[in-house]
Amino acid sequence: MSGDKITVGRYLFKRLHELGVRGVHGVPGDFNLATLDILPEAGLEWVGNCNELNAGYAADGYARVKGISALVTTFGVGELSAIAAVAGAYSEHVPLVHVVGVPNTAAQKNGLLLHHTLGNGDFQAFEEMYRKITVSSTHLRDPARAAEDIDRVLETCYIESRPVYIALPTDVALTEIHSEPLKKKLRTEVKDNNQEYEEEVISEILKMIYSSKDTVILVDACAIRHRVLEELHKLVKTTGFTTFVTPMGKGAVSENLPEFGGVYIGDASRPEVQKRMEQAECVLYVGGLQSDFNTAGFTFRITAAKTVEFHSDHMKIRNATYPFMHMKPLMRTLLPRIEKSKIPPQPSTKSVTNEKPSPPANPQEDPNNGTEITHAYLWPKFGNYLKEDDIVCTETGTANFGIIESVFPAGVTLLSQVLWGSIGYSVGCCQGAALAAKELWEEGGKVITTGPEKAHVKNRRVILWVGDGSLQLTAQEISTMIRLGLSPTIFVINNNGYTIERRIHGLHEKYNDIQPWNLKHLLPLFSPEEGKSKYLSCKDRKELEHVLFDEGEDTLNDGKEGVIKLVEVFMPQMDVPRALGMTADATAKLNKRMLGK
Amino acid sequence: MSGDKITVGRYLFKRLHELGVRGVHGVPGDFNLATLDILPEAGLEWVGNCNELNAGYAADGYARVKGISALVTTFGVGELSAIAAVAGAYSEHVPLVHVVGVPNTAAQKNGLLLHHTLGNGDFQAFEEMYRKITVSSTHLRDPARAAEDIDRVLETCYIESRPVYIALPTDVALTEIHSEPLKKKLRTEVKDNNQEYEEEVISEILKMIYSSKDTVILVDACAIRHRVLEELHKLVKTTGFTTFVTPMGKGAVSENLPEFGGVYIGDASRPEVQKRMEQAECVLYVGGLQSDFNTAGFTFRITAAKTVEFHSDHMKIRNATYPFMHMKPLMRTLLPRIEKSKIPPQPSTKSVTNEKPSPPANPQEDPNNGTEITHAYLWPKFGNYLKEDDIVCTETGTANFGIIESVFPAGVTLLSQVLWGSIGYSVGCCQGAALAAKELWEEGGKVITTGPEKAHVKNRRVILWVGDGSLQLTAQEISTMIRLGLSPTIFVINNNGYTIERRIHGLHEKYNDIQPWNLKHLLPLFSPEEGKSKYLSCKDRKELEHVLFDEGEDTLNDGKEGVIKLVEVFMPQMDVPRALGMTADATAKLNKRMLGK
Ligand SMILES: Cc1ncc(C[n+]2csc(CCOP(=O)(O)OP(=O)(O)O)c2C)c(N)n1
Ligand SMILES: Cc1ncc(C[n+]2csc(CCOP(=O)(O)OP(=O)(O)O)c2C)c(N)n1
Ligand SMILES: [Mg+2]
Ligand SMILES: [Mg+2]
Repeated sequence: MSGDKITVGRYLFKRLHELGVRGVHGVPGDFNLATLDILPEAGLEWVGNCNELNAGYAADGYARVKGISALVTTFGVGELSAIAAVAGAYSEHVPLVHVVGVPNTAAQKNGLLLHHTLGNGDFQAFEEMYRKITVSSTHLRDPARAAEDIDRVLETCYIESRPVYIALPTDVALTEIHSEPLKKKLRTEVKDNNQEYEEEVISEILKMIYSSKDTVILVDACAIRHRVLEELHKLVKTTGFTTFVTPMGKGAVSENLPEFGGVYIGDASRPEVQKRMEQAECVLYVGGLQSDFNTAGFTFRITAAKTVEFHSDHMKIRNATYPFMHMKPLMRTLLPRIEKSKIPPQPSTKSVTNEKPSPPANPQEDPNNGTEITHAYLWPKFGNYLKEDDIVCTETGTANFGIIESVFPAGVTLLSQVLWGSIGYSVGCCQGAALAAKELWEEGGKVITTGPEKAHVKNRRVILWVGDGSLQLTAQEISTMIRLGLSPTIFVINNNGYTIERRIHGLHEKYNDIQPWNLKHLLPLFSPEEGKSKYLSCKDRKELEHVLFDEGEDTLNDGKEGVIKLVEVFMPQMDVPRALGMTADATAKLNKRMLGK
Repeated sequence: MSGDKITVGRYLFKRLHELGVRGVHGVPGDFNLATLDILPEAGLEWVGNCNELNAGYAADGYARVKGISALVTTFGVGELSAIAAVAGAYSEHVPLVHVVGVPNTAAQKNGLLLHHTLGNGDFQAFEEMYRKITVSSTHLRDPARAAEDIDRVLETCYIESRPVYIALPTDVALTEIHSEPLKKKLRTEVKDNNQEYEEEVISEILKMIYSSKDTVILVDACAIRHRVLEELHKLVKTTGFTTFVTPMGKGAVSENLPEFGGVYIGDASRPEVQKRMEQAECVLYVGGLQSDFNTAGFTFRITAAKTVEFHSDHMKIRNATYPFMHMKPLMRTLLPRIEKSKIPPQPSTKSVTNEKPSPPANPQEDPNNGTEITHAYLWPKFGNYLKEDDIVCTETGTANFGIIESVFPAGVTLLSQVLWGSIGYSVGCCQGAALAAKELWEEGGKVITTGPEKAHVKNRRVILWVGDGSLQLTAQEISTMIRLGLSPTIFVINNNGYTIERRIHGLHEKYNDIQPWNLKHLLPLFSPEEGKSKYLSCKDRKELEHVLFDEGEDTLNDGKEGVIKLVEVFMPQMDVPRALGMTADATAKLNKRMLGK
């Protein structure tokens, strides 16, 4: 082999660069400092978060916008502080590369009683924990194998769209290896399915859609996470089938499409949506993830007998499972095979969308009445504020359920953790998403838009909705936004505590109260530049509409660039979005039934 | 059995109450809400932290002051967010009971796709992670075994002085069991050692001290954590041997004692301390924990040939190990056996302490010169501010090394994580310690003082020293202090970033910079009551001495009760305590040697 050499650390970072990573999240520590020196050589930039959990959340948000992300922490104290965030990425299918700077190989071999250890000479404990929440991992002990190991782990991360773990000893990071393998690009494409096997599945699917007089498409989380949106949009266009999304699938298709039918969430759906969805003769269910909060407490009624399920690791047709198939290559084969003329006439989507939204169950909640900012009022209104290609982060709590009622313009991306549901996530996520959006804009890259077949360069707005309780977990990451010159708009729902929890249990209990914060001090605490931050507050509907839709200094529309804004929105303590109430009730009922009470 | 029944949750909380727990740290979640309802019935109070990591740190601090603590989190998201804190408690020998509210047994059995899961039906993953950092654990699936399991786990926690894990399903928490077992108190005393075996060890120890003309005692972390201070103080008094402490042992003996010789930290000791310590003929080393940062980079020179090591799970005499012996019962047997008359005359302790402290290596560091607040100047000065029985929390960073140079009045307790070293710890720790101190005071309980044989009722002051970088990880927990009406004094070292890291690697690198915070806004953000908070700043020595030692509104001595104070202390960016510099150099040298460079 020829003389081209490269350090292991640099090799790793070059590979990350190749995958599209630029900003690297994390917190320094003495077992990763020397490695951080290498970042600039590989074209990467250090973010430097306030703490590791937030860094993990940020990396998650960044990956959801940019396709993959990197997180660097230090042995023990750092990596364990981030583990809940990485577990979230695993649960929610987000590709995140966690690089942990670990003690040098000699220190490990000698079992030295180092700081950041458990004091028992066990240097494996933390990486063993990580095995449960990663799809691949390696401890780069042997430089001779490092390139191969790195490549394998990174490819798995991207293709399986889930986190991986790389332990990098301080000495190995700086050891030189051959740079030869870099000449071959990493594989990021899913492998084709076995042809014969695939053929059987495709002919079954075609039989079903050619015979059904009412087929609908239902789009869920994994359609986004496993990158089949392009194929999906073609499927909608080719077939013209009415298309619904679940809460976790929201944003996967443009809500402006004539085929868009609304959000299906079982018993918490709008009645006309539920009716149409559940009456359908055939359901093409893409990327399904039927968790309790994504299904209003397991109230989906889509019988297996009429359903085709598309997954990243299997297909399911009626009750037959076809393991080891990936929906992406399958859809690619399927699409050109669909003959529109063979599809029977279908009921129009208009039958769903043209019906007036049903009146609220509780007339006091009528969005046209009153001055209080209720959820029934808020979310449709917020929908009007949204613009094409906005990125919206919402927090577990009332926001995650409320956002279902905002109609999205084309290309809006929704980032939230409906399955994992770790509060505080949205703040870190917002930092990562805002950085990713900025990088894409600066690179002149395409917007990874969820709109149909669009690809354009745009400086996307990033908007966060977080509850007053959740904000307290991770508020300091707003400091990082300011440090990086990011300027998202942050809406804080001030409803005086953990409202979602009150609705589930303990309406008036002390444990659902929080210390009220004086949010006027929050942005100033982080020393923003003069004139580069703004606090606004909305106590009633008039104030909110002024802030959202009017122009001027005391609104969001001040015509200035680069100003980070915090909008405190005061809402009634006991008010929750419709879908949350129904989910809570369904869950309570299910628990009673299961426990035989 | 008679009819007395009690729910499993209440049984558990009654046991925690019995062990002295009152305030329970944690964050609510829907898998623990119903359990939280039970707290008041058992005489416990909910703290309600801002996030779980901070709650874990707080529980650690509380346990160090009160003897044991409880942490309640919710499944997955909550427990994993706290895992770095619990790992710290494991590493540093702190007894902490982590109770995790988990999904009901039926949902687990059915493998429901619940929120807060990994989405793969694996309900064991998190508790398996916890097995690596706890000494005992149980998943309370079977109510019939619950009482026995709870008792076993809690006893292990207390006796082994390390964390345990209890998974409590929502349904089991409310299931009734017999309360009978509660009549028998939990065992909290360490079991006696085998007599014959102990006898051999004792006679060996006596032989050594009766023949040595220069015996010293060295006290380390585990003497505090495994509760042998009473025995230790008797040992010092009975023998009169000159007694040193390590950094992690600091506070274990009163520094006013005539026998107190100073802090031994290998090559970073004051020369007269190092000389005396290393010349000794015999060393009684109690609770040793020779980690890198506790030994100035493994520079202790205490040869095995002259040493008796006292541990909680073994004894070591010269090179012979005696497994399964606990130092506490051993010391109790040993003490009455020591005949003072048989101990040869010893060199006086004065030979160490009367020597003038050696002048600083760098004359610019002379504490008597200049106006800048340098470490060489600061820490002896801070020693003068300390009062008997103060509780001092210091953060990993310059503070942990600086505090070595503060002379402690009797009874001062030092809380820090020299081994685990997770930054941000000190802020949570301070909240927990302040609550524990307040409870002890309100209960009229004895101060668990480190002073010799004192036991008195006192409202102890709690003082925190945290770096500007570390503060950013966990700053929100000051909100909890305010919420609980706690009023510690918080010193923030503003040295413009991660100074300890600069000293180790990357003096001028960007990754060691932080976003500067405007700390004037920090306390007001958390909505303290009018007049109940104060910000002070010290730019030079005069200002610091004014704040520390003068009286008046703009000082710490304002004669008011219940005012939480934040003192921002501006220090030079590149200045570090002597011991830190020496530790960093020794570690670098060791790494080079180990790696054969
Ligand atoms: C890390 C973590 N801890 C605890 C929980 C439990 N939890 C879920 S929602 C919630 C309250 C959220 O309150 P807030 O952000 O104020 O939202 P609201 O419902 O009031 O709008 C809590 C404590 C969680 N999901 N994640
Ligand atoms: C959770 C965690 N993350 C990262 C580190 C690595 N680390 C150790 S000290 C330190 C910097 C502390 O800076 P500061 O609190 O400002 O202390 P200074 O030395 O400046 O006084 C860092 C990042 C750590 N110990 N723990
Ligand atoms: Mg709230
Ligand atoms: Mg600092």
